[in-house]
Amino acid sequence: MLSLWVIIACGALSLVYGAWAYQSVMAQPAGNPRMQEIAGYVREGAQAYLRRQYTTIAGVGVVIFLLVMYFLSITVAIGFAVGAILSGLAGFIGMNMSVRANVRTAQAAMGSLGAGLEVAFKAGAVTGMLVAGLALLGVSVYYLVLTGPLGHSFGDAKSARVIIDSLVALGFGASLISIFARLGGGIFTKGADVGGDLVGKVEAGIPEDDPRNPATIADNVGDNVGDCAGMAADLFETYAVTVVATMVLAAILFAGAPNLPSMLLYPLGIGGACIITSIIGTFFVKLGANQSIMGALYKGFITSAVLSIAGLAAATHLLIGWGAVGTVAGREITGTALFTCGIAGLLVTGLIVWVTEYYTGIGYRPVRSISQASVTGHGTNVIQGLAVSLEATALPTIIIVAGIITTYSLAGLFGIAIAVTTMLGLAGMVVALDAFGPVTDNAGGIAEMAGLPKEVRKSTDALDAVGNTTKAVTKGYAIGSAGLGALVLFAAYTSDLTYFAANATEYPYFAGVTPNFSLANPYVVVGLLLGGLIPYLFGGIAMTAVGKAASAIVEEVRRQFREKPGIMQGTEKPDYGKAVDLLTKAAIREMIVPSLLPVLSPIVIYFVVLAISGSKSDAFAAVGAMLLGVIVTGLFVAVSMTAGGGAWDNAKKSFEDGFIDANGQRHMKGSEAHKASVTGDTVGDPYKDTAGPAVNPAIKITNIVALLLLAILAHH
Amino acid sequence: MLSLWVIIACGALSLVYGAWAYQSVMAQPAGNPRMQEIAGYVREGAQAYLRRQYTTIAGVGVVIFLLVMYFLSITVAIGFAVGAILSGLAGFIGMNMSVRANVRTAQAAMGSLGAGLEVAFKAGAVTGMLVAGLALLGVSVYYLVLTGPLGHSFGDAKSARVIIDSLVALGFGASLISIFARLGGGIFTKGADVGGDLVGKVEAGIPEDDPRNPATIADNVGDNVGDCAGMAADLFETYAVTVVATMVLAAILFAGAPNLPSMLLYPLGIGGACIITSIIGTFFVKLGANQSIMGALYKGFITSAVLSIAGLAAATHLLIGWGAVGTVAGREITGTALFTCGIAGLLVTGLIVWVTEYYTGIGYRPVRSISQASVTGHGTNVIQGLAVSLEATALPTIIIVAGIITTYSLAGLFGIAIAVTTMLGLAGMVVALDAFGPVTDNAGGIAEMAGLPKEVRKSTDALDAVGNTTKAVTKGYAIGSAGLGALVLFAAYTSDLTYFAANATEYPYFAGVTPNFSLANPYVVVGLLLGGLIPYLFGGIAMTAVGKAASAIVEEVRRQFREKPGIMQGTEKPDYGKAVDLLTKAAIREMIVPSLLPVLSPIVIYFVVLAISGSKSDAFAAVGAMLLGVIVTGLFVAVSMTAGGGAWDNAKKSFEDGFIDANGQRHMKGSEAHKASVTGDTVGDPYKDTAGPAVNPAIKITNIVALLLLAILAHH
Repeated sequence: MLSLWVIIACGALSLVYGAWAYQSVMAQPAGNPRMQEIAGYVREGAQAYLRRQYTTIAGVGVVIFLLVMYFLSITVAIGFAVGAILSGLAGFIGMNMSVRANVRTAQAAMGSLGAGLEVAFKAGAVTGMLVAGLALLGVSVYYLVLTGPLGHSFGDAKSARVIIDSLVALGFGASLISIFARLGGGIFTKGADVGGDLVGKVEAGIPEDDPRNPATIADNVGDNVGDCAGMAADLFETYAVTVVATMVLAAILFAGAPNLPSMLLYPLGIGGACIITSIIGTFFVKLGANQSIMGALYKGFITSAVLSIAGLAAATHLLIGWGAVGTVAGREITGTALFTCGIAGLLVTGLIVWVTEYYTGIGYRPVRSISQASVTGHGTNVIQGLAVSLEATALPTIIIVAGIITTYSLAGLFGIAIAVTTMLGLAGMVVALDAFGPVTDNAGGIAEMAGLPKEVRKSTDALDAVGNTTKAVTKGYAIGSAGLGALVLFAAYTSDLTYFAANATEYPYFAGVTPNFSLANPYVVVGLLLGGLIPYLFGGIAMTAVGKAASAIVEEVRRQFREKPGIMQGTEKPDYGKAVDLLTKAAIREMIVPSLLPVLSPIVIYFVVLAISGSKSDAFAAVGAMLLGVIVTGLFVAVSMTAGGGAWDNAKKSFEDGFIDANGQRHMKGSEAHKASVTGDTVGDPYKDTAGPAVNPAIKITNIVALLLLAILAHH
Repeated sequence: MLSLWVIIACGALSLVYGAWAYQSVMAQPAGNPRMQEIAGYVREGAQAYLRRQYTTIAGVGVVIFLLVMYFLSITVAIGFAVGAILSGLAGFIGMNMSVRANVRTAQAAMGSLGAGLEVAFKAGAVTGMLVAGLALLGVSVYYLVLTGPLGHSFGDAKSARVIIDSLVALGFGASLISIFARLGGGIFTKGADVGGDLVGKVEAGIPEDDPRNPATIADNVGDNVGDCAGMAADLFETYAVTVVATMVLAAILFAGAPNLPSMLLYPLGIGGACIITSIIGTFFVKLGANQSIMGALYKGFITSAVLSIAGLAAATHLLIGWGAVGTVAGREITGTALFTCGIAGLLVTGLIVWVTEYYTGIGYRPVRSISQASVTGHGTNVIQGLAVSLEATALPTIIIVAGIITTYSLAGLFGIAIAVTTMLGLAGMVVALDAFGPVTDNAGGIAEMAGLPKEVRKSTDALDAVGNTTKAVTKGYAIGSAGLGALVLFAAYTSDLTYFAANATEYPYFAGVTPNFSLANPYVVVGLLLGGLIPYLFGGIAMTAVGKAASAIVEEVRRQFREKPGIMQGTEKPDYGKAVDLLTKAAIREMIVPSLLPVLSPIVIYFVVLAISGSKSDAFAAVGAMLLGVIVTGLFVAVSMTAGGGAWDNAKKSFEDGFIDANGQRHMKGSEAHKASVTGDTVGDPYKDTAGPAVNPAIKITNIVALLLLAILAHH
């Protein structure tokens, strides 16, 4: 119990850090009145959007809360609420920091690049630490409540199910918020970005973030609600689901063993230790003499990662020891083996960061190849971007495969689970690196709109270019953990199924259920194909939604230019609020159907296959295979979209200082080649910020719903 | 034996039909001297390319022939040669028809649309009937030789292996040609198309197929070597591999049964019957009073499909009867059930045709949505095209899943196999519908270059627009059969494995091998992920290759314009041969590496997993899972690319008569919206004609190589 309190203290420490960093950012000067006015618009728009989004999700959430309560129990339903509310809270506070840090970053960047980086990164760290801290606190405190005051224990089978179901429901709550936030935020931000660019840059010929463009405030609002709040909810969910899945697996694998309580605490302990190392790491993010922003971020990241090895060792030593900890699938596993698996998880993270930087960073072959292809036109730019996006899946897949084989050889399924948990341990740091992106993007917008000196915009642009890479990193990291954790989630499903079938007297629904998960079973192939379809269909709907929202913005901006001819002369003020409002409605409306696709799929497929085949075993086999099918294609769809989109964006940025092509000719901003690169960037926008990143929560929610389906069937 | 001779006669009949249709096309007037001059350039270029391609493949082929002979036997190696040579022959003759029919179609179209359709379709039917006929003849004659003169029989285990290995090798030969031809041809044709468009339409502002564009002949050559010869090799391979896999499955499932010989002949009998119905169907392709080209093609297709039900019934009645034919997986199956499976196969084909028309045809929502998105720019056009391409995977997947469940419920694995065989029975007709496309495309080019009246171009354009849809249909059909047949190919692999392991005294390498194909086995997940990677990596490399080839063309055309300023004034003749030569070299060079990826993957994965895990069972499990992984992502990659590309192409075409947008405004050719649609079309080109269609042979070759790997390991 003491250990659990220590873990909770680590979680609480992250909140203390967050509060300190928040104050520290707020203490910075907030710029001149014009800057504050613009920032005020952005803040209001973002808050209005989030209010509407949360109201809508709350409606869906209350219905699901009641359903869970009816089908399972109030304890489980509260788990769902805890997950949902904390996830929402992480996004809400993070966004509120972001909309206040943007103007302070712009002001600080007037001093120096280093000062700008410091403010922006500290703001990102607030979101990062809240995500990791709240997720850890949510799981550990509710676990404490379940096993303490509520008196549940793994000693009793019925009671153990309540703990497992409650934790799974907590993951479900987090996933539900996450998919809505990722999609809704993604549609908003990219509708604004694409629509605003098309009508502003291309038609009216005014630069990005020009205050005359009625969509420009909406664009900056989008950075906060999509890239900050949406991303925070996504990573909260990834963290929570991973820790929960590892605990569920521990409960199954070490059932009845005397060391079960410490095995259950081990993933929480790793999370707690890594929060401390992440906090320490944040203090190492400092611009060096070489002025390399990526270098500064790497310093912080590497410090966290290296210190995490010590943290992992401490957690292993204190909680489970280095010797034998139990027998998994007939093989004895040791604390040392699990520690090594944790290091493998850190290594996987590091390698994914490195590969993502290669595929999306300016200066490497992939981005250069897209810049070069822009010289021959729009078409070749897009072709090369798609080629890069397809190719970019290769190394991450091989890294994940190597991770699976290594950790499984060391410590079976639990080894994989510990690797993923350790990977997610760094979430605080990774989110910090990501969340600084939208702050700098906004800072650039404010600098432009407030007419600050060109050097400020130059500094914020430099920060933003790195932000494209770190944003791609986070997405690769989240989806990579899903790929590595695929077997863990699948194992939770099959183990539950086996447990219910083995205790069929208690769970009569499962009498005689013996699903055959062999690839030779046609229902397994059917499940793989239908699961594989989810990311494609989901992606298609999301892309269409962005296109529609963008077209609506184009029409609205054209209308304003037509009806208020003074806007372009600067004598009339555009109606910024109208564009924000329009996008808010569009995003909320369009996020519902695709979000429900992964939620309902497992349920629909189960009952349809059951109706056709008449066999529960076949239906469960199809659903199980679907869980893997959604990961197999989801991994490729998500990695290709996020890496490709980042590469396109940076290829466009490579023209800002002039891109020198293979023939030695320099192409400047405004050249034909630059225009072609803008098309690629526009295409990449919904790829990397709407459809691609939403695949991760879609995968998780499909898995979690399948687990809940089992729990519900077991109760009836 | 009599039945086999009848089947061979059906195959021969298709050659007779082909010869008659060839003569009949050649008897048409070949146009004026200028037309013949241009057609001559195209013919020479195409022949030169094919000569070079076949020489290169022959080099690889001889090495593999020797390897197969060394590792297996001369009989098996000859099977390989038969598959390779006949596949090459089908492409060679089809292309030679195509390069002669183009100019005759242009001439006929001067008379009427109906006359143009007739010549073009008849030329397509030559390719179609040769593909189906030669594939059927190859398999059935070599089977006759193996079981007749060479004296092999299924009564003896060793001898049965020789028959199976030889037929599998025949499929391997066909696959090898097919992947090279699809990729090489695809890189050539789209390099020419993309490069020519970029530098001609966009830079120089001259229309497509303008004789002043030095790349224009290469573009027309590309239609013949890619869309005709490449496609023919692909479908030959699909046909041969499907029939072979069904026969292998029959040999396993009905081993020792007295009706084994007739079960082996059944798939060949279906193929024979369907060739006759396809030939009859060709005579129903006639333009009706409503002048609907698609309607004319549907008449032929539906006639073939409906008559095929009778053909299928005849094959069932004569070869296996309607009663019980044996027991598969503990269930008795009947001739009636297999007949119903065949009808399901026809239904799947019909539904895929219908869905493909919906997603790629002008006048339906998807293409209209892309046209509409073009109004707001290049970026939204590409976004909407990608959205359509993702969404287009949904219905085909559901159709395939329904096909798997229905046919498996009726007659187990053999039911699925018979459904796929019947599906492929219509290959002659489907290829005919496809192969008429490049002929009309060329005819339009010749009409343009020879300065024929505008009406001719209008007729050929109308034919070409339908060609875009029928081309997408063939690709959807080929990949659909791969999806439906996935379990059949996988079953061939697992059954072989089980057989070798059960007879380990004879095949000592397989002693103690018991692979676990459960999804809970990490090596299965590893296999699924690595298999899933193949279509992505392969697609990325192919897209890059097209981009490179196109850039080379752009440079070359720019050079010619610079060095010969008279070209644009029409006083100097461009050097067409240079562009053809350049593309030939590029295509041959770039096709090698990606083609070897699926060939080597099963072998590399087997030995790498074996080295890491030390367990043959794990290594075989990983390879088996890889075979399904490549289909799971391959299905989505291929369908999305081919449907999306077709939709983009037709969205561009929708501007030719003026596209009326949602606000009622008309956008003509040359408008900004039209330009945006050209970008989408350029992107769609390598999607639909290079990367997408090459996925099908990549899937097949991976499966076939895995089977050969087993055979080779068994011999050592």
